[in-house]
Order: sequence, then structure tokens, then C-alpha cells
Amino acid sequence: MSFHSMWAELLPVGRSSASGGYRRFAWTGADADCRAWFREQAKARGLTYEADRNGNQWAWLGNPAEGNAVVTGSHLDSVPDGGAFDGPLGVVSAFAALDELRGRGARVTRPLGIVNFGDEEGARFGLACVGSRLTAGSLTVEQAHRLTDADGITLPQAMEAAGYDPGTIGPDPERLDRIGAFVELHVEQGRALDLSGDRIGVASAIWPHGRWRFDFRGEANHAGTTRLADRRDPMLGYAETVLAARREAELAGAVATFGKIAVEPNGVNAIPSLVRGWLDSRAADQETLDAVVGAVEKAARDHAAAHGVDLDVERESFTPVVEFDHALRDELARILGSGTDLKVPVLGTGAGHDAGILSGRIPTAMLFVRNPTGVSHSPAEHATEDDCVAGVRALADVLEGLACT
Amino acid sequence: MSFHSMWAELLPVGRSSASGGYRRFAWTGADADCRAWFREQAKARGLTYEADRNGNQWAWLGNPAEGNAVVTGSHLDSVPDGGAFDGPLGVVSAFAALDELRGRGARVTRPLGIVNFGDEEGARFGLACVGSRLTAGSLTVEQAHRLTDADGITLPQAMEAAGYDPGTIGPDPERLDRIGAFVELHVEQGRALDLSGDRIGVASAIWPHGRWRFDFRGEANHAGTTRLADRRDPMLGYAETVLAARREAELAGAVATFGKIAVEPNGVNAIPSLVRGWLDSRAADQETLDAVVGAVEKAARDHAAAHGVDLDVERESFTPVVEFDHALRDELARILGSGTDLKVPVLGTGAGHDAGILSGRIPTAMLFVRNPTGVSHSPAEHATEDDCVAGVRALADVLEGLACT
Repeated sequence: MSFHSMWAELLPVGRSSASGGYRRFAWTGADADCRAWFREQAKARGLTYEADRNGNQWAWLGNPAEGNAVVTGSHLDSVPDGGAFDGPLGVVSAFAALDELRGRGARVTRPLGIVNFGDEEGARFGLACVGSRLTAGSLTVEQAHRLTDADGITLPQAMEAAGYDPGTIGPDPERLDRIGAFVELHVEQGRALDLSGDRIGVASAIWPHGRWRFDFRGEANHAGTTRLADRRDPMLGYAETVLAARREAELAGAVATFGKIAVEPNGVNAIPSLVRGWLDSRAADQETLDAVVGAVEKAARDHAAAHGVDLDVERESFTPVVEFDHALRDELARILGSGTDLKVPVLGTGAGHDAGILSGRIPTAMLFVRNPTGVSHSPAEHATEDDCVAGVRALADVLEGLACT
Repeated sequence: MSFHSMWAELLPVGRSSASGGYRRFAWTGADADCRAWFREQAKARGLTYEADRNGNQWAWLGNPAEGNAVVTGSHLDSVPDGGAFDGPLGVVSAFAALDELRGRGARVTRPLGIVNFGDEEGARFGLACVGSRLTAGSLTVEQAHRLTDADGITLPQAMEAAGYDPGTIGPDPERLDRIGAFVELHVEQGRALDLSGDRIGVASAIWPHGRWRFDFRGEANHAGTTRLADRRDPMLGYAETVLAARREAELAGAVATFGKIAVEPNGVNAIPSLVRGWLDSRAADQETLDAVVGAVEKAARDHAAAHGVDLDVERESFTPVVEFDHALRDELARILGSGTDLKVPVLGTGAGHDAGILSGRIPTAMLFVRNPTGVSHSPAEHATEDDCVAGVRALADVLEGLACT
């Protein structure tokens, strides 16, 4: 099955007709459809299929127990109303690259795996990369058991409802020890390749990044009858903080975003009792990130105090800087650079990935495919078919260079 | 049944154990329980009960067809997580005042009605005073048919599910023509009586007020990888507008509040595509209100443009200034002022009421009961039992003065 056909088959799965975006959340029906598709692709190619203890899916050419395997893949889940490329491009390209390898008649000398990591986006339970974190042991079983979605359903309950056994989740070091290299192909989530005029890039590092929850607690009251002087309106402190985050990020060359909010009671004629906003911030290095978040928090405290509002700030997740394996990165650049017209810029990224989680345990690298607008996490996310095919060819070159003679 | 017992009976109905606030939304189970309670109170007193074509409930002593009736009452529904007093105090006090009248052995010479207006708060369908607006003809049947709740259920569907016939809704001029005076007792929603040291006040006017929806439309994108310069983040324009609203209201001596917000896609790592905020604003006169809202809208346009964000502003509802009937207001002040120790301050209010809707059709007045903190639309809303009993006595005095010999 060609890249084009696989892509067309996945396109309608979990797509909202209202927004045109994807709602492929972990352990939902749309997720199950994506998983069934993965399993069929593995079967159609005679690959050995397995779902691991954390719900990640694997398809193997050769026997992984031999060790020093080369694995590629990504994820199939999405953010709320996400685009078609973030995740699926890496999985579809993995199958297509294997087909290309076979078409070239390459002799594969290392076990070759394709993976679909579960719940990479964290859209449902609020924590990204749950499948790879559990496998790498950077998320404990106890922490995973406490993950709850907006309807109060826990992760184990959701897994069970989807027909998976949540009793076995946990670290899986044997599995990781068998992998000699993991390469994730991903649509670029910025415009660096577009600006440099390149189709394909290699990742250098993932910026440190985190999520902080800001709870502004004031006093619910009537919006028509409460004098301004008598108000403790948490929306005001929130608004000041949104603007402070933008200012501080601009000053530091970082990014900071308030994209999610929950308000109580959220009535038109009620001053809120609670405004809860989530800050997502990232920077090229830890020191800069700490400075930005520290300054935003200070501004939030000052403004909350000025409005008689209480503030609680909690760091919900944090990922330190990830430097990808230098030897593997250089090897990829060498393999790709030996092609006729292929330059391979090396770029950093502000986005988290399963590759970032695994890089602490095994040699890991990433390939980026050009994104002409840089738009990501949106239905407008795009890569041209020509660039996607170039990505498949580059991934096939990498697999051939690493795993074939 | 005493005021105290009636109050205790209503207290648990529709109360959230999580927030301690009330969720008595129109045509829900909690609303049905309140309506059953009203009907039982009418029956227990031998009053003639009827639900009108718009779902308002009436209990009659005497025959309203004789005309020139005196009606009192309020509503039993609530805002999201509202308090116990806003609405129910007026209905419970109406029954208690009738009991007091009978206890005094007063001879009633005009038909005397008690009313529970449906859906006063507009918590479910976004429009306040639906029951009285329909009856007065200030909300058309076509407009009412277009009202939809957050789950997409229309008002007629909700009425039908609650066992009411939505086919009969519409203006009810005969009913209003039979009423010579409507007096609504309500907990004060500010601190004017507390500051002046009075238990009871009489309303002068309701400030003009309205609701405006601000839709800021930007571009969804990845919060980690999108350069600040490439963003079209609608949260920034929203935040600037929240602060502008406060500033403009302060300058004008008006009130302006953003208490409700809806964000899409509302993900921690996604720049929003849409931030929808609702402005509630009120002022002592129309000119001031127009100036405040105009200035807020201008600030919103400027800030949206600066961030490459589109803005749509729509006025969702508007109520002009309501001057209560001067003759009736003066009559109330005369009746209450003739008591031994009762002063009756006359005050304006920023809150809308069914009394405000009806005042365009029939002579209408309001009594306010002291609220020691001024808190309203919140579980902390309060009036002391002594003040509530003083309210019942004042309402009984008014009914006796107007309807008895």
C-alpha cells in the first residue's frame, strides 16, 4: 500500500466535521480505529505485531530479542482539533519507508521495528507522552493511576474500557534494552525549513518546557450590583498575567502561552470565584525558562494581591532540555548528506516528543519534514505530498544506512 | 407553615454538595422540585393554582378575573452556583406574608396573587426573565424558539421534557390586564441598606444593562514551536479587553464584567483559535452605558488588530432603564413609613428583575431586604433571619395597605 493510500485511509478517522480538526484522544473510539489500522498494516506486511504492557503498538521485521534493533515511528493520537500530520506522518512514513527498503532489495541485518506510542499529546489526561514515559520509567505506575480525564475517568478505567489490561502498566527496560537506535520522523512545527528552503532536517535538541497551573481565587458575586471597590474579581489578575507572560517571553526570546482556561461559575452576570489558567512555556535553556516563569509568577502574585485575589501556582509537568545523541545525529546527517541534492540542516525545537522521552535511555534522533506555514496543532497544519514523499525516502535512506548492508 | 419551615424545606433543593451553591436551572429536575413545592404551598393554603402558558406559576386568593389584582412573588431558579436568597426569598416571603395577613384577620378586598416566574436568571438559555418577557410580549415566540442551551436543547424541547406544552407560549395580555399592582420582594444585591443601617428599602429604578459577546478569532497553533512574531493569539486581545472594561467602568462610575469565557480548542499546548468572552455592563443612565461599552469595544478592536486577530461584537440582550411606577413607589413608602421604627430608603439597583420587565405593562414596585455583605449570585449570599422576618412583615403591611380594608 502506497504512502498516498495509507494517508487517505487514515484521513477520516476521528475527524470532526464541525472543525475539520482531529479528536483522536487516548483510549477513545477514534484511538481504537487508529490502532486497528496500525495492526492491519503490520499484518499486511507479514510483520510481527504486539501491543506492549503500556498500550504502545509494535510491528517487527526480524526478531527484536536479537537486540540492537532499529526502530522508527511516532504516534497516532491528536490534540483537540489537531491537524492530520502531527504523529501520523511519522507512522505512515515508517511503513512506507519499509516498503521502499524492500523495493530496493536491501538486506536487513538488524531487527527493524515500527512503533505507535500511546497518548503522546496528553489531550485527555493532561500529561503528554504517557506511553513512552511509562515504558521509560519516567512516569510511575502510581502517578499513572492518578491521571483522570475531564469526566473523572481514570487512565486504568479508560484502558480497561478499550480492552487493554491496565494491571500490567509500568517500566519496560528489557524492551528498551533491545533497541539500538530510535528515529522519529515528524512534521516540522515551525518555519525553519521553509525559511531555509529545505525539505528535511535533523533535530539537535528539544527545548526545556513545562506546564504551570495558575489558580486565581476571588469571590463570586453579582456582576450588576457589586461595586467595583467591593470586588475580588480573579479575571483581572488572570488578564494581567496573560499579558505579563507575553511580555516576559518576548524579552527573553522564549515562548509563553495561556491557551487553556477554566472559569467558575462561568456565568455572564457573575463575577467569577475561580479563574484557572494554564501556562505553557519553553526556552532554549533552563536558566532562561526559569527566569521567564519566575517573572510571570511574580507578576501574577502582584496583580492578584492588588485585586484581593488568592493565587496558587503549581507546576504540572516539566521536561528538561533534551540533547539528541550526537553520534546518531551525525550519522543521520552523513547518510542524508551523501545524497545528490539533499542538504540537512540541524535544528532545535520547542515541541516535546516520545523521542525526547526515550533519549534518556537509548540513542535517539528525529527527522523533520518541511511545514510551509509552520502551523501545527490545528486543522491548517500541512506538508506537501512531495515533501512527505521526500521524508519517506530520507527515512528509508536512514534505515538502510543503519540496518542494512 | 412558618417562614422558617418553608425556607428549610427549599434549602436542599438543587444544591451542589461540591460548591454549596444552587443549580436550579430552568426545566431541569431541580426546577421541577421547586415547582412542586410551589404548588403544594398553594394547595396547603386553599389557593387556586395555575401554571400559565409560559410556565409561570400562580396561586390565587380570590378570583383574578375580577381585575385590579395585587400580585407578589419572584422566582425560584438560580444562576450557576448561586445563593439561596436570590428569588426564593421573594416567593417564600409572599406565602408567609399571606399567612401573616390572615393571622391579622385582615379583610381582603382585591384578588391577591402569588407568582413564581420561570427562568428568571437565564442560566440555561442565556436570556434572563424568559417567563415574564414572554408574558409581557417583549420576547417573541420566534425568538423563544431559537433559544438553545449548551447541549443544543431548545427551550420548547426542554419545556416538553419537563411536561409543559411549549405550543402555547406567547404574550398573555389578558393576564396582565387583570393585575393592578405587582410588588417583588428581593434580597438586596449590594450593601446600600447595610451602609445606611436599614432592614428594608424600596426600589427607585433599575439601571440600563446589557450583555455583549466578544469573539476574538485568531489562529490555532503549537504553543511550543510557533514564534511569537508568527502568532495570532486571541487570548491577548481578550486579556487587554478585560482590563479595558474595568478601567472604563471605573472612569464612568459604572460596572463592567467579563465573567464567562469559552476557548477553542482550550488545550494547554495550543494557541487558541477562538476566545469568546461575554461583557456584562450597567450604568445609572443610558448615555453612560453607551459610552462605557463603546470605549471597551474600541479598545478591543485596537488590541485585536495589533495581534492580527479578528473581532466580532454582538449585543445579546439589552434592557433600558426602568423607572418604577412613582405612585406605587410613594404608596409603599407611605405604608412602610407609617410603621413605628421603619425608615424606608429608596434605592436604585444594577440587577434586572421580572418586576423590571413587567413595569412597562403594569404598576410595579420592589422591596429590598438587607444583605450584610452585599454578596449575591454566590453561595455566600445572605440575609439574617431577623431581616427576612422584617421583610415578611413589610410585605404583609404593603399587601394589607393595597388590598385590604
